[in-house]
Amino acid sequence: MKILVLNGPNLNLLGLREPDVYGSESYAKLVAELEAYAAKANLEIKIAQHNGEGQIIDELHAAVGVFDGIVINPGAYTHYSYAILDALKAVKIPAVEVHLSNIHARESFRHTSVTAAACVGQICGLGFFGYFVAINFLRGIIEK
Amino acid sequence: MKILVLNGPNLNLLGLREPDVYGSESYAKLVAELEAYAAKANLEIKIAQHNGEGQIIDELHAAVGVFDGIVINPGAYTHYSYAILDALKAVKIPAVEVHLSNIHARESFRHTSVTAAACVGQICGLGFFGYFVAINFLRGIIEK
Amino acid sequence: MKILVLNGPNLNLLGLREPDVYGSESYAKLVAELEAYAAKANLEIKIAQHNGEGQIIDELHAAVGVFDGIVINPGAYTHYSYAILDALKAVKIPAVEVHLSNIHARESFRHTSVTAAACVGQICGLGFFGYFVAINFLRGIIEK
Amino acid sequence: MKILVLNGPNLNLLGLREPDVYGSESYAKLVAELEAYAAKANLEIKIAQHNGEGQIIDELHAAVGVFDGIVINPGAYTHYSYAILDALKAVKIPAVEVHLSNIHARESFRHTSVTAAACVGQICGLGFFGYFVAINFLRGIIEK
Amino acid sequence: MKILVLNGPNLNLLGLREPDVYGSESYAKLVAELEAYAAKANLEIKIAQHNGEGQIIDELHAAVGVFDGIVINPGAYTHYSYAILDALKAVKIPAVEVHLSNIHARESFRHTSVTAAACVGQICGLGFFGYFVAINFLRGIIEK
Amino acid sequence: MKILVLNGPNLNLLGLREPDVYGSESYAKLVAELEAYAAKANLEIKIAQHNGEGQIIDELHAAVGVFDGIVINPGAYTHYSYAILDALKAVKIPAVEVHLSNIHARESFRHTSVTAAACVGQICGLGFFGYFVAINFLRGIIEK
Amino acid sequence: MKILVLNGPNLNLLGLREPDVYGSESYAKLVAELEAYAAKANLEIKIAQHNGEGQIIDELHAAVGVFDGIVINPGAYTHYSYAILDALKAVKIPAVEVHLSNIHARESFRHTSVTAAACVGQICGLGFFGYFVAINFLRGIIEK
Amino acid sequence: MKILVLNGPNLNLLGLREPDVYGSESYAKLVAELEAYAAKANLEIKIAQHNGEGQIIDELHAAVGVFDGIVINPGAYTHYSYAILDALKAVKIPAVEVHLSNIHARESFRHTSVTAAACVGQICGLGFFGYFVAINFLRGIIEK
Amino acid sequence: MKILVLNGPNLNLLGLREPDVYGSESYAKLVAELEAYAAKANLEIKIAQHNGEGQIIDELHAAVGVFDGIVINPGAYTHYSYAILDALKAVKIPAVEVHLSNIHARESFRHTSVTAAACVGQICGLGFFGYFVAINFLRGIIEK
Amino acid sequence: MKILVLNGPNLNLLGLREPDVYGSESYAKLVAELEAYAAKANLEIKIAQHNGEGQIIDELHAAVGVFDGIVINPGAYTHYSYAILDALKAVKIPAVEVHLSNIHARESFRHTSVTAAACVGQICGLGFFGYFVAINFLRGIIEK
Amino acid sequence: MKILVLNGPNLNLLGLREPDVYGSESYAKLVAELEAYAAKANLEIKIAQHNGEGQIIDELHAAVGVFDGIVINPGAYTHYSYAILDALKAVKIPAVEVHLSNIHARESFRHTSVTAAACVGQICGLGFFGYFVAINFLRGIIEK
Amino acid sequence: MKILVLNGPNLNLLGLREPDVYGSESYAKLVAELEAYAAKANLEIKIAQHNGEGQIIDELHAAVGVFDGIVINPGAYTHYSYAILDALKAVKIPAVEVHLSNIHARESFRHTSVTAAACVGQICGLGFFGYFVAINFLRGIIEK
Repeated sequence: MKILVLNGPNLNLLGLREPDVYGSESYAKLVAELEAYAAKANLEIKIAQHNGEGQIIDELHAAVGVFDGIVINPGAYTHYSYAILDALKAVKIPAVEVHLSNIHARESFRHTSVTAAACVGQICGLGFFGYFVAINFLRGIIEK
Repeated sequence: MKILVLNGPNLNLLGLREPDVYGSESYAKLVAELEAYAAKANLEIKIAQHNGEGQIIDELHAAVGVFDGIVINPGAYTHYSYAILDALKAVKIPAVEVHLSNIHARESFRHTSVTAAACVGQICGLGFFGYFVAINFLRGIIEK
Repeated sequence: MKILVLNGPNLNLLGLREPDVYGSESYAKLVAELEAYAAKANLEIKIAQHNGEGQIIDELHAAVGVFDGIVINPGAYTHYSYAILDALKAVKIPAVEVHLSNIHARESFRHTSVTAAACVGQICGLGFFGYFVAINFLRGIIEK
Repeated sequence: MKILVLNGPNLNLLGLREPDVYGSESYAKLVAELEAYAAKANLEIKIAQHNGEGQIIDELHAAVGVFDGIVINPGAYTHYSYAILDALKAVKIPAVEVHLSNIHARESFRHTSVTAAACVGQICGLGFFGYFVAINFLRGIIEK
Repeated sequence: MKILVLNGPNLNLLGLREPDVYGSESYAKLVAELEAYAAKANLEIKIAQHNGEGQIIDELHAAVGVFDGIVINPGAYTHYSYAILDALKAVKIPAVEVHLSNIHARESFRHTSVTAAACVGQICGLGFFGYFVAINFLRGIIEK
Repeated sequence: MKILVLNGPNLNLLGLREPDVYGSESYAKLVAELEAYAAKANLEIKIAQHNGEGQIIDELHAAVGVFDGIVINPGAYTHYSYAILDALKAVKIPAVEVHLSNIHARESFRHTSVTAAACVGQICGLGFFGYFVAINFLRGIIEK
Repeated sequence: MKILVLNGPNLNLLGLREPDVYGSESYAKLVAELEAYAAKANLEIKIAQHNGEGQIIDELHAAVGVFDGIVINPGAYTHYSYAILDALKAVKIPAVEVHLSNIHARESFRHTSVTAAACVGQICGLGFFGYFVAINFLRGIIEK
Repeated sequence: MKILVLNGPNLNLLGLREPDVYGSESYAKLVAELEAYAAKANLEIKIAQHNGEGQIIDELHAAVGVFDGIVINPGAYTHYSYAILDALKAVKIPAVEVHLSNIHARESFRHTSVTAAACVGQICGLGFFGYFVAINFLRGIIEK
Repeated sequence: MKILVLNGPNLNLLGLREPDVYGSESYAKLVAELEAYAAKANLEIKIAQHNGEGQIIDELHAAVGVFDGIVINPGAYTHYSYAILDALKAVKIPAVEVHLSNIHARESFRHTSVTAAACVGQICGLGFFGYFVAINFLRGIIEK
Repeated sequence: MKILVLNGPNLNLLGLREPDVYGSESYAKLVAELEAYAAKANLEIKIAQHNGEGQIIDELHAAVGVFDGIVINPGAYTHYSYAILDALKAVKIPAVEVHLSNIHARESFRHTSVTAAACVGQICGLGFFGYFVAINFLRGIIEK
Repeated sequence: MKILVLNGPNLNLLGLREPDVYGSESYAKLVAELEAYAAKANLEIKIAQHNGEGQIIDELHAAVGVFDGIVINPGAYTHYSYAILDALKAVKIPAVEVHLSNIHARESFRHTSVTAAACVGQICGLGFFGYFVAINFLRGIIEK
Repeated sequence: MKILVLNGPNLNLLGLREPDVYGSESYAKLVAELEAYAAKANLEIKIAQHNGEGQIIDELHAAVGVFDGIVINPGAYTHYSYAILDALKAVKIPAVEVHLSNIHARESFRHTSVTAAACVGQICGLGFFGYFVAINFLRGIIEK
């Protein structure tokens, strides 16, 4: 089973970026933890991060026929990228949307997600833990 | 460590209620699975369900000094109960909001949550699994 | 055939309450007329009135497997109770929404109904007569 | 006692028109049933149908001094014809608005009525039955 | 010089129609006063009244090459008829919009005019007097 | 009979100010024409112009017991001065609102008037002529 | 194969009407070109133009069983006629909506179409050419 | 003279609840101060607190014929409970709405009150003092 | 201790102005009662009234270093004067906003206050009594 | 004459992507048909597809001085890319916007186009045919 | 060359007023720095500050024929004074709008400017420096 | 000291692009002037231009630890790119937003900036001059 973990804009700056919102652990640490998690769980995993909306869509397209599940954190694109929504619908791979912070406790433009409608579900506010949950959940529905 | 699992209106009708949205498993099954999960995890757990907004607030108030974490599924109240929002803020016990279905893929009035702002995070669309994740996450932050 | 007539908040004050809007006949009179109507029509009828949103939902849940049709006047909850909407969808008993006054000729917040979407239809502005019509209509579709 | 039954745009296509919404019975059948109902009830009845907003207003004007009550189904004009609203106010004949389908369970533009504010009440979702109820109700208030 | 006075829906019911808003003088009286006024002022005048949006547009089209100015009271169409707006723009005859009542002191949907944008100006709340003013004004700009 | 003609902000710059909108005739010319008109009509007239919202309100207050009618052009305050609205309601002297340009053919913020609701009527787009009409109309209703 | 070309309000004034928006060619020229086009393509064609919303609906109804496809330019009704929307849905003949001008580059009220939802597609901004395309397209899908 | 002091959801948690907003004094202290105040002022007073919307309505209904005035702090229900609005209108006992905090300086959903429209007035931001003022004011109007 | 009582536009017309809304007692009476109240309470008081937004701001500025508390009734400016909001924030003197009438039971534009956010609290609907309460409250917090 | 056909995000997945909306024919087929069409029509054509907003803008810029016309299907960017709007305005090459599906019959966010305002016109709902029409139309206006 | 620097409401309180937003330097210091800057640059400068909307308009009017450029900081009027907008348009002297703080990082009502539309440009967030830049820029375009 | 000047979509087409809005000077000229300015001011400067949202974010990320200040003109992304907002917040380098044209005098979608909230300030409408000002300002705050 293969899982794509796809991170959107500014996630590469984790730790540097507004630490009171996103925590002080670095993006490298997230990647390392995800790889360790996947190794232990005997999963093939690819972790990608892109700042460009088009690159995220390209990555999603490239997942067709390769990955069984997608964990996606579209960053700020969550709130306006109908193009990523369309990409998620087009590739038809089960996806879970993850946000590190609680988007409901921040600026009002972050309270809604246009991309989650094309996912199975969404997790927010649980920090790194949300990624592991999402992977775990996908394994559950794929292996069924 | 003690966890309160608090379910809002109409969750008692699980299985009967719009099975294409909420699945065909009954509320009794959710309760049984949660109890089994808690037993295995060595957690004290109380599972409550109320259809009344006031009863949910009463239950939250009664949790002060008793429970270390709250898993709450406020049902439809999620979308308009500022009174539950205030209750969650008042009791100051870490809470995770859970929804069985993906609220972002349903009617537009369900796309926003007024109660999640007073929670640590929110999980939606993962079915029963969301409850286990929430309990697990709370244990993580409480035991830290 | 059994019909539940379920009245929402403040309907118990009929006659006392804004008589220019709701008429001067008392709630007791409505109950008596409904019972007489049911007796004559050879229908089993239960008439309930609750001021609490949760109580109305409880009553709707209790109707499952007991009643064949529901006449509901959700009072002011008509305009914001997504929880009652969910309850009506969950119980799947044919329901008709009734309002004594013409909601379209009053304050703008009363011009829309969030609960009627889960009913077969809605009647407003016909006073007590609306209840008899609703019962009559339900008999028609149930006996078909 | 004389009643005008006035149907708006597209009602003449009943049966042909979106049968899953409006049912499969034809407009001719509605007319026949209304005439039979009126005959039995010893009422004079005129049934008119117009697709034009102006024709509906003309018909309402012509009712002054001739009809004692009006049953009106303004079709899609319900949702934007302030001119029909004004006509109903101008003629001052008691009117009941009827819709075959449950307007609250359809597209959001159908959830409000600008014409019902000038009627005594509104009935929707009860199919042909709504017309009979409306006539019956009007007889009640006229004969009082 | 020839002036078209074009009245929209329900103006024919003047006197009968909501006399507290529109006054108790009849439409016949308005017509008579306008004709007397025109006679005295040595103007050719045509006074038309239509309840249909299409008839009003037809009348406007027919005015091309015949009339030098238009006094128009579009009644309730004022607030939503983009088709009449287009007609006024198309015919390019100077027009003045007139309303008997003060539209700014009534329901909020009457506070804006979509048709006035294609007129030279608008007069409201001055009763019959508004028509004479409009004719007078048009004479002024036409004779210049 | 005494009439107050009260002009709001920027009207003193007539002629200089956006001549394509307001015409090229100066404010002095408007004043002169109004005085000539009043003299001929045997009316006492006071013409005031203020740029300040408070000054306009002061002037309106000072009119109580002195003037029989008011012609007011509140300039841009038309669109947001609830304080002038309140002043017009408070002084209870019949007023007519006048605008030189057609406010309905300009920026959308000019399409509504908050002050006209406290006037008898409104005239716009007729240039200087609108003032004479307003005075004339007021004489009509005062002398009645 | 028979095609109905149905034009809405003010299209008869083509050439006269705002030539910078709609071009300077007359309606007669459009009719002639359409007839020539149909003749060459061996199609039966009927070209109708109505200013009335009701007349347009009547024409659509009359098309049932007679025409195989409809080219409709509802003019300004495009933006608010839910009654025409309903008529197009009711008659169930494949229709293409055409606009001479680019509605997206004009006033904001023209940016949306309520009638296009009941058509197969929409063409705007291509002038007369849009009509030929629409006919051509309909032939394609009808002959399939 | 008898006064009902009715507190809504979460007020029982005063002192515990967001002390920077509501102060650090407990609900018990509020009750004690109110009782002392009433004793000194020779007033009969009942102090009730409910978290349920229905309970608040029940309490209001029970006040009919018993209490001469009502001091109500509807908590978060202030902002959406049309059912409490209806109850206040129905019981027709003079009421004053009180809020401990300044609702205008908090989240925007707290800036408006739907319940205050059925009260004589509203006091906010004055802490406990607001309750005494409200009682005092009610005594003034009742004893008049 | 010195208190500034600052009244906004149209308050000088009390008694004359819409007596059904504001009562029939004159502004002079309010001033006299306030002065008597202050004398009895051994407070220095200044009572000012201005119709101009700028004058109100000037008065607030002049209060710096002179007054210990401010009672402000900004009249209609309450609903749109961000400049007065800024002035209240700038002077940093504790202020209480007062309205004679219940702003929540009037036109919708009066339901929100932009100035109250810079005050300690707001009182509305209690008539003259509201001023005394505000003074009393300010004394309480200043003397603390 | 040279035409650029520029496709936006997700169009490369045609056939795979929501076939009930976009049809089951692949993107390769669209390209092949366009090339065949161009060859037959003796046109130079370039067909590009990009998922990135910036790439689409780059492609548009590169067209300056190279292409005589542009056929653009901006995919989901249609509904929010003011940057593509600006690019289309900047390059000043006549463009036609094409959509395979009828955007007016889908989710409401697809009902408006921000990019079409900078095109000559728009075609939607005609499938592949729309592209041929657009090319044909451009040839018409370029060769004129 | 002569420049008018015109400051709006509350700017005189600089230093005192919310120092975390506006800095701790006084208005006197701003004036002194501007005068020094002008002296060094060999410019005639007038610095005015008014709290009244009308006074600002008066000052703008008085600038006609006297000043070559205007630097305006309309304070809170920026966000709602259409009267100042009109004044700036009327006087036709090139103006630059300046704000000390970054209006885009504050309350949402400060995110838009109604007055900047009549200026050449706007500078915000650069503190005193913004004024010097504005003067410098105006010199540039005036001397050209 | 090192400054990054970062230009967004379509700025490379300066001179070609809508010259009445953006002026007729080319992008090359802007670059040359900026380099000359930097050389004279003894500043290290990098000037970048990207059409892609992701590229702009990449460039911003790459600035961390390299540049002391940023001058950013996000072009049309200004109005909707929450991803660039997040990037500016993440990199924490002082930035000034610049627009060549006066965004307040153009289409309404350009009146607000979502990116400026993460900058120190914003300059618009001053043409090339705005860039020099921004650099100058940044030098001032960095060297402090």
